[in-house]
Amino acid sequence: MSRSEIAAWLRDFQTRLCQQLETADGGAVRFGQDDWQRPGGGGGHSRVLEGGRILEKGGVGFSAVEGEMSEAAARQLQMPDPHFFATGVSLVLHPRSPRVPIVHMNVRYFEAGNGEAWVGGGIDLTPIYVDEAQARRFHEGLKAVCDGFDPAYYPRFTRWADDYFYLPHRQETRGVGGIFFDRLTLGADGSAAHLLGLMQAVAEAFASLYTPLMRENHALAYGEREEAWQTLRRNRYAEFNLAFDRGTRFGLETGGRTESILMSLPPRCGWAYNPAPPAAGSPEANTLAWLRKGVKWA
Amino acid sequence: MSRSEIAAWLRDFQTRLCQQLETADGGAVRFGQDDWQRPGGGGGHSRVLEGGRILEKGGVGFSAVEGEMSEAAARQLQMPDPHFFATGVSLVLHPRSPRVPIVHMNVRYFEAGNGEAWVGGGIDLTPIYVDEAQARRFHEGLKAVCDGFDPAYYPRFTRWADDYFYLPHRQETRGVGGIFFDRLTLGADGSAAHLLGLMQAVAEAFASLYTPLMRENHALAYGEREEAWQTLRRNRYAEFNLAFDRGTRFGLETGGRTESILMSLPPRCGWAYNPAPPAAGSPEANTLAWLRKGVKWA
Repeated sequence: MSRSEIAAWLRDFQTRLCQQLETADGGAVRFGQDDWQRPGGGGGHSRVLEGGRILEKGGVGFSAVEGEMSEAAARQLQMPDPHFFATGVSLVLHPRSPRVPIVHMNVRYFEAGNGEAWVGGGIDLTPIYVDEAQARRFHEGLKAVCDGFDPAYYPRFTRWADDYFYLPHRQETRGVGGIFFDRLTLGADGSAAHLLGLMQAVAEAFASLYTPLMRENHALAYGEREEAWQTLRRNRYAEFNLAFDRGTRFGLETGGRTESILMSLPPRCGWAYNPAPPAAGSPEANTLAWLRKGVKWA
Repeated sequence: MSRSEIAAWLRDFQTRLCQQLETADGGAVRFGQDDWQRPGGGGGHSRVLEGGRILEKGGVGFSAVEGEMSEAAARQLQMPDPHFFATGVSLVLHPRSPRVPIVHMNVRYFEAGNGEAWVGGGIDLTPIYVDEAQARRFHEGLKAVCDGFDPAYYPRFTRWADDYFYLPHRQETRGVGGIFFDRLTLGADGSAAHLLGLMQAVAEAFASLYTPLMRENHALAYGEREEAWQTLRRNRYAEFNLAFDRGTRFGLETGGRTESILMSLPPRCGWAYNPAPPAAGSPEANTLAWLRKGVKWA
């Protein structure tokens, strides 16, 4: 696949994914679309749904950008040549109910000026309340996708997710993890088709892994206590994305479109000072106990 | 003054400042206090008031810590010797009403392992709605404090605040600025007393510069429109503190007490996607027009 074929596939994937999510949400609320241009080359389409039946706020971004990156950015990426082409789809969904997990998905393709090309991506789940069976099913689905390409992938990629989606100042993982991979370099030995296939398979798997959680959980009961815990977990999400997520920081520091980069931030949150830790044995404490690296989910 | 005398002065200042703020808030709600120890040496007292009459959330932190910092931290501070002593008071107030500005104050004293000692600090104001006369009075007060030490200070320190409290991804200053200074090195020629005096004078000036804004503004009318704008401006505050503020990042990355570092975050916020810009000529647009570097406030 050429870079333009890859970008076209991702753009079409974004459209299909938004349709699947609209249907899963009930169909009454649609994704909007903002088209933007990057002054240095390329642009994107940001699609956001707000005020859905199940999704309080969901963003699905597509971009295909090219040009020269700043010296600082090239150094950060350890690239000797500042020319690049990058295309990808990113998604973050913030459901209204504390019973439905926050979720993040990203797939991306990158070409460096020296001809090197690589893919990256992943899917990770951030339940407000961890449902062990659902978390295991989610990971088993990711494992099945990975195993279709290489049985070494899932163990490696899920450890990578644990390490990446980690809040050092809280000593917590962002959620129950998932998979994360970056800079898997396309070689000349058939690995290009293999890795592009992996990227596409991860993307295509997303809806079947996540929309069942919308369907099964959105009608479960909750009250003020669950909403307060949701606020706290959303705060953590904002802390991670603003202070630690390399993609967000890279985007903000290199002049990306701010509203597209920050469409991942929660629609409502707010920090109380030093909230009391959840009572031992409570559902909140049970969730916290899962937010650690190295859980063998699948 | 010895380091322990400086720390004792700052600790006493924290106590007096909390009393002044309690009185200005109406006296019914008190600051709590959490004492904490730093594993590597020293500790602090975090004082937070929540649910006040005027102050929705206010934090006043004191710390006096010492030991060895990580190599990464020493490199960031350009310090050849990792031993250090640091003491200071930090304050962020989030008023309930959009008519009362958010405010930040910090004064700090630092000793490096090689014997070098310096002070830093500042006060800056973040109105939800800029009142030009109040912003000018605030800056004139800061100028008067600085002019008592050196007429070159205010112009230098207010430019420093403009540069420091800047959100590059929004191309906005955080508020109407104020003063900021860092690493003013204490020499042997009487400059130690001069600079410690400056630090104390900035601290002591805070209450007289800010509490009039609580008194004058808290009863002004506001409604949903003003609250929505407050949410947006609070989001910006969170973006700055989590993604750009060097003190916050330094604290989180070097294992400071997370709840004390993040007590600056707003009690309620939440990101809508790409909100429409304020209508031309509206009070919100008028405020945005002030959020730029280089305004000659005093």
